Amino acid sequence: MKPFKMAARESHENDTLVPIAGPERTIYIGEGYCTIIAGPCAVESREDYLEIAVQLKTMGVHILRGGAFKPRTSPYSFQGLGRSGIVIMAEARQLTGLPLISEALDVRDLDYLYEQVDIIQIGSRSMQNFPLLEQVGKLDKPVLLKRGMAATIEEWLLAAEYILNRGNPQVILCERGIRTFENYTRNTVDIGAIALVKILSHLPIIVDPSHATGKWRMVTPVAKAAIVAGADGVMVEVHPEPDRALSDGKQSLTLENFQKLREQIINLAKIEHKIVL
Amino acid sequence: MKPFKMAARESHENDTLVPIAGPERTIYIGEGYCTIIAGPCAVESREDYLEIAVQLKTMGVHILRGGAFKPRTSPYSFQGLGRSGIVIMAEARQLTGLPLISEALDVRDLDYLYEQVDIIQIGSRSMQNFPLLEQVGKLDKPVLLKRGMAATIEEWLLAAEYILNRGNPQVILCERGIRTFENYTRNTVDIGAIALVKILSHLPIIVDPSHATGKWRMVTPVAKAAIVAGADGVMVEVHPEPDRALSDGKQSLTLENFQKLREQIINLAKIEHKIVL
Amino acid sequence: MKPFKMAARESHENDTLVPIAGPERTIYIGEGYCTIIAGPCAVESREDYLEIAVQLKTMGVHILRGGAFKPRTSPYSFQGLGRSGIVIMAEARQLTGLPLISEALDVRDLDYLYEQVDIIQIGSRSMQNFPLLEQVGKLDKPVLLKRGMAATIEEWLLAAEYILNRGNPQVILCERGIRTFENYTRNTVDIGAIALVKILSHLPIIVDPSHATGKWRMVTPVAKAAIVAGADGVMVEVHPEPDRALSDGKQSLTLENFQKLREQIINLAKIEHKIVL
Amino acid sequence: MKPFKMAARESHENDTLVPIAGPERTIYIGEGYCTIIAGPCAVESREDYLEIAVQLKTMGVHILRGGAFKPRTSPYSFQGLGRSGIVIMAEARQLTGLPLISEALDVRDLDYLYEQVDIIQIGSRSMQNFPLLEQVGKLDKPVLLKRGMAATIEEWLLAAEYILNRGNPQVILCERGIRTFENYTRNTVDIGAIALVKILSHLPIIVDPSHATGKWRMVTPVAKAAIVAGADGVMVEVHPEPDRALSDGKQSLTLENFQKLREQIINLAKIEHKIVL
Repeated sequence: MKPFKMAARESHENDTLVPIAGPERTIYIGEGYCTIIAGPCAVESREDYLEIAVQLKTMGVHILRGGAFKPRTSPYSFQGLGRSGIVIMAEARQLTGLPLISEALDVRDLDYLYEQVDIIQIGSRSMQNFPLLEQVGKLDKPVLLKRGMAATIEEWLLAAEYILNRGNPQVILCERGIRTFENYTRNTVDIGAIALVKILSHLPIIVDPSHATGKWRMVTPVAKAAIVAGADGVMVEVHPEPDRALSDGKQSLTLENFQKLREQIINLAKIEHKIVL
Repeated sequence: MKPFKMAARESHENDTLVPIAGPERTIYIGEGYCTIIAGPCAVESREDYLEIAVQLKTMGVHILRGGAFKPRTSPYSFQGLGRSGIVIMAEARQLTGLPLISEALDVRDLDYLYEQVDIIQIGSRSMQNFPLLEQVGKLDKPVLLKRGMAATIEEWLLAAEYILNRGNPQVILCERGIRTFENYTRNTVDIGAIALVKILSHLPIIVDPSHATGKWRMVTPVAKAAIVAGADGVMVEVHPEPDRALSDGKQSLTLENFQKLREQIINLAKIEHKIVL
Repeated sequence: MKPFKMAARESHENDTLVPIAGPERTIYIGEGYCTIIAGPCAVESREDYLEIAVQLKTMGVHILRGGAFKPRTSPYSFQGLGRSGIVIMAEARQLTGLPLISEALDVRDLDYLYEQVDIIQIGSRSMQNFPLLEQVGKLDKPVLLKRGMAATIEEWLLAAEYILNRGNPQVILCERGIRTFENYTRNTVDIGAIALVKILSHLPIIVDPSHATGKWRMVTPVAKAAIVAGADGVMVEVHPEPDRALSDGKQSLTLENFQKLREQIINLAKIEHKIVL
Repeated sequence: MKPFKMAARESHENDTLVPIAGPERTIYIGEGYCTIIAGPCAVESREDYLEIAVQLKTMGVHILRGGAFKPRTSPYSFQGLGRSGIVIMAEARQLTGLPLISEALDVRDLDYLYEQVDIIQIGSRSMQNFPLLEQVGKLDKPVLLKRGMAATIEEWLLAAEYILNRGNPQVILCERGIRTFENYTRNTVDIGAIALVKILSHLPIIVDPSHATGKWRMVTPVAKAAIVAGADGVMVEVHPEPDRALSDGKQSLTLENFQKLREQIINLAKIEHKIVL
């Protein structure tokens, strides 16, 4: 017997489709759609963020990402701009009409984030932060739940269950690589997990090839692989000048490379009979 | 260059010795001492907890453990008694004169725990819950920081750095097994990490052989190994009737087996020139 | 500096293309081609093998696989038919005109295998069997080198180097999943490794999604993912009646499902501008 | 039901005790004894090896180790002296009266090794080299079977089963660290595996803390830990001038540090009621 109930395929007649109500139109994440989320790892300055947001909008991106509350391994690393970062993102939202996704680290920030962003991200380090899961489980807001670095698929679906169980059905899973002995890459993308989640659960699943690989040259092949393995979308780091990024520059695509990735993803989505809005 | 600074051996002339101010006397954790922490995994009922507390006291245990806020993989598992569990523990503290350790999951519970327990435990799932780390970093209370299931030694010491950096020098590390491919045991105790932490850092380190192995028959050999590898103590799960435990019964020692473990630990501590208070 | 030399991209102007000289025509494995290898895990009986070989031929398979010398974890498991298995495979080769691939376990069997098969497979358990690597390095015969279960990409390319270094340039790499903490699947396919090998090396690389996942329902999505991530082909287990297989039945595709996989692979190969002979 | 039979504790009334018939006296490995094996990683020159052999003899070492056939990750690393290395070891055997252990890589070298050494070592990379296991299973010679880098305890005991099953009951297991995500150390010593093997099997088990940790400063604490966790002995790398070693210098103890390790091991063996011959 599976330990997860509400996350199990058996509990739900159709695949879950999560509508993201942006300022201009509604985007969907889930079976039948291929959704592209992009943006820089961290919001670093107002000008840079607004500029890249506008460019991503013209490139057809569906949802803007940006980190304001950054979970950093070292207390000496750049910790994100916090609420002022969210203010910048909100301005980009209005300017571009694109919905926003940003990470919540602290239960005390949820009310604020709830007002400002369209998807609340639970990062891999917080996948088993149960108070945080319970709290987002009480919101009527889509939640993107990243897989923990060393979480089994079962533990991941049980973390989703914490959210579903509290009343929020809008859960999107995100595979972002697991920790293995291999250290040529930052993490190992568990491509099979994408196929398996589609068998075990009705929840949508996307992939974050940027954090997963940690190397920009691997982002496009891994993103493509995820789509044909069944993923409902990708979330990609894009930075106008990756070398200048305050965090995770090495894994960010330039706008030019992102454009190429997008074209290839759209081609594959077509073959897989997925709609790209 | 090491990424951690205040946790590094070089930053501190002597090994850190953390005094635990119990109701009757002060216990020490750190170089030169061998400290024994014991108790059931979860506080389940007042009677049971008080009874085992008294028995552990007569057996010479230094610190009482007990889980009230339990981080459980599934929302359908017993989640602990919460604050009423802490009330029971506080009664046991008064009854036995033993200091208490219990886990904090949520920043919103810290004020309460601060008043009631002598050591605040940060569990392995919370090792990178940075808001929680920062918050306990502002308290004048010893903090036991368990290693994350898939945390490198460097990430662990950087998590300690978050606490030290906010002003709390009373950090005790706790090795509790890491996640590996081997699944005959629950986790793999990284015995080398104990030796390595003693080389890299001035912080005390203990081991939790119960969670690490998940099998009671392995608890004693692993606890002994930890002491001779350099650990400053052990934290062991003891349950009067392990088969009846609501959580983690399989890894709990009976009182009788705990008594045998304690005798062997004391013998080894002597050889290692460590004081058992 | 990279520790591998002859396997490094820098050492070789063009991508290596390995010609497989079958009885009827030459097949190629490497950049620009998408090659499909299929067959049952183990050769079990003459009739069954000849029958499936004929069917796979009509389905357009390029190369026939079959295990005669089986590396089995337990001495009590079916160990393969040995040389009589190879005799059956050779008959299938003549009957269908398809080239053969089979695994070598023992240096003492190499002369025999050299005469009978078109590609010698070095299994994951033998990836660091250096005497075996050196011996196949002296042959003028294509070698398929599977990645060890816990081998880093660097160790894998160094194992290839042992073969190249002895004079055999016809090395084909095969990703077959690595061992991780996740045990819902048999192994974790390292999809990023495929992308990375294409960056680091000039050697062809294919994927074995059957052994990698251990679950037939995951074989097709993972095979598709591998192709768009850059793999030069797939090696798939097919069994007329998977439930009746003496080894690895759970991961074998039926002929019907294999046919569907093949169609999807061909569609993706087209988009990736790869030739399917 | 356990998949291993002859290796299982249930199959054997008493613990297996393996006698090592040296030129001067018989050494025992198994329950009740604590055996110390030492020597340099590789035999590098006649003079050096004879000198260290004599010194180790005077220090009370029971068995001499030395690598002649070296399994090296890269074909460009020093591959050992081969048979001439064994000739040097045989001279040391005669000179010191100590029995020898050395690794076999290739079935074609077994006859030669059988004549010259007292224990044949199967290295971690060969743990699932089944032809090699079957061949040593036919010899009347003790075999030390190292655990594979990513082998589960079950797979390890099944590898032992291959040897037992062919008729050779003289199998000694050796834990040498497993591959995990942690890369501060070379491997992670699975201290719990030692305790577990003692529960599951009647076979003797020793530990190799040198290869396991890859850092000489960790060798002594880990060796001590292994003894109190139940190991029947240790195998340690000692080099007169570690910085000058052709392989694995960083993990070798100086003679002086080895002497200190030995004293501590003897103290612990006494507490554990083990005989040090």
